Amino acid sequence: MHELAEVGYGRLSIEAVARRAGVGKTAIYRRWSNKLEMVLEIVSDVAGRSVPLPDTGSFAGDLQLLMMIVSRALQHRIASQIIPDLMAEASRNPQIAETLQKALRTHQQAVGEKLIGQAVTRGELPPGTDPEVAVDLILGPLYWRLAVSRTPLGDDYLETLIRVVTAALKTG
Amino acid sequence: MHELAEVGYGRLSIEAVARRAGVGKTAIYRRWSNKLEMVLEIVSDVAGRSVPLPDTGSFAGDLQLLMMIVSRALQHRIASQIIPDLMAEASRNPQIAETLQKALRTHQQAVGEKLIGQAVTRGELPPGTDPEVAVDLILGPLYWRLAVSRTPLGDDYLETLIRVVTAALKTG
Repeated sequence: MHELAEVGYGRLSIEAVARRAGVGKTAIYRRWSNKLEMVLEIVSDVAGRSVPLPDTGSFAGDLQLLMMIVSRALQHRIASQIIPDLMAEASRNPQIAETLQKALRTHQQAVGEKLIGQAVTRGELPPGTDPEVAVDLILGPLYWRLAVSRTPLGDDYLETLIRVVTAALKTG
Repeated sequence: MHELAEVGYGRLSIEAVARRAGVGKTAIYRRWSNKLEMVLEIVSDVAGRSVPLPDTGSFAGDLQLLMMIVSRALQHRIASQIIPDLMAEASRNPQIAETLQKALRTHQQAVGEKLIGQAVTRGELPPGTDPEVAVDLILGPLYWRLAVSRTPLGDDYLETLIRVVTAALKTG
């Protein structure tokens, strides 16, 4: 993970990974036959870990907690280097693209179903709320700001974003 | 641009660019001393072109037009390969990061000021509307969906997104 974050997938070499891990190249090759296989397993493993989904008892609380978790994760040094790199690699490597998309969609669906489902059950959101649009609306602005335009969140940013996203979803 | 889209920044070579352009390596080196300089100039040039900002006479119309422009651009084959690649490179190359961020912020500010400013003047959005949050809310979900989770837009997706984003901004 550290080597990948530092040099990127394109420049990643099995030799450098072995050196950093303090093992011989053969130890790496016993487990993975090439760097694509190695990276795919690491990505599947990390992406497959279930994100702790909030249940604070109210949609406002759940949304606030989720946005805090996501904004911290996106600002993490390793994540902020590995994520864009894998995205780039995915645009020209179908196997990486498939692994990433499968992981993202599974998470996204779980978040949508749980967070929005709970809120609809509690009567906080209208029954027809589209979970896909909801998740894009919750994750998109944070991702855009922290991972793309890389603008620091201002003091009231999260608060304002939570308020407008809640208003958006309440109108259906 | 085509060579960059195909192989990515990490694997881009001046030799291959020269070959594709049908010129000698020296012709490239006369203009740029290395590949970083070359890519920075191309990115500044493309990113610096002003995006045609819509003025359809209503916020609903402006928003719809902007979202259509953005979603088409993000689905463009060259853009969908070059953007993630430059993002990845930016995470470890401060010069690329600065060039990209400057371009993104300039556009983002222009869009925010014009689109939101017009709507506030027309009385369609409340006077205190935060243009930064507004732009993140407009671009973020589309970027997340098309460039990150790479999920095709469903039939009613844009329509629903426009409706909820408008509702969000109207509540301030």
